[in-house]
Amino acid sequence: MSTDCVFCRIVAGEIPAERVHEDDLVIAIRDLHPVAPVHVLLMPRAHIGSALDLDESDAPLAGRLLACAAALARSEGIGDGGYRLVVNAGVDGGQTVGHLHVHLLGGREMRWPPG
Amino acid sequence: MSTDCVFCRIVAGEIPAERVHEDDLVIAIRDLHPVAPVHVLLMPRAHIGSALDLDESDAPLAGRLLACAAALARSEGIGDGGYRLVVNAGVDGGQTVGHLHVHLLGGREMRWPPG
Repeated sequence: MSTDCVFCRIVAGEIPAERVHEDDLVIAIRDLHPVAPVHVLLMPRAHIGSALDLDESDAPLAGRLLACAAALARSEGIGDGGYRLVVNAGVDGGQTVGHLHVHLLGGREMRWPPG
Repeated sequence: MSTDCVFCRIVAGEIPAERVHEDDLVIAIRDLHPVAPVHVLLMPRAHIGSALDLDESDAPLAGRLLACAAALARSEGIGDGGYRLVVNAGVDGGQTVGHLHVHLLGGREMRWPPG
């Protein structure tokens, strides 16, 4: 845990958030500033700074994140309609919190380009 | 392989594409209609229709896709500047080819919302 990381503090329960999923590797919360009717953030419990820090040893985590995203899409009612997953890395990517997270977005037609 | 899937035919070499990476699980090609200076598509060799079809048994593939995306970001020169990963699933997600793929986008500042 990084004590100056907002998402680590959410994982630790020090900052409140609406959790929609949690397991041993991953938690998922609703985004405070949703840009779609369904906007959930999935993040590892462990502090991983960015997608750039992932390597093959993170396969169990990567698998869990993507499997959870699919399960949440179903439970949030957007499995059939469709959804978009977005991971921002670094400044050009628009990453605003330095703790890896996956945006799950749906409930409306997503446009192209994706930002 | 699905014979009516464009990406399966690219994987099989039946349709030409500019490959920027290939290994036993994944290939990556340049998008024919780039929406950023760097726009690469990473896809499994195996036909997986959508992100909705992923479960925990796909962890090795998920890990490889994310590790390859990080490695490609570095080799494409956008590791330091940052980048965005996007996966579209279904109609609302804007999925246009029914074979799972990850968009790697960078070389410019990505905007918010992501479509």
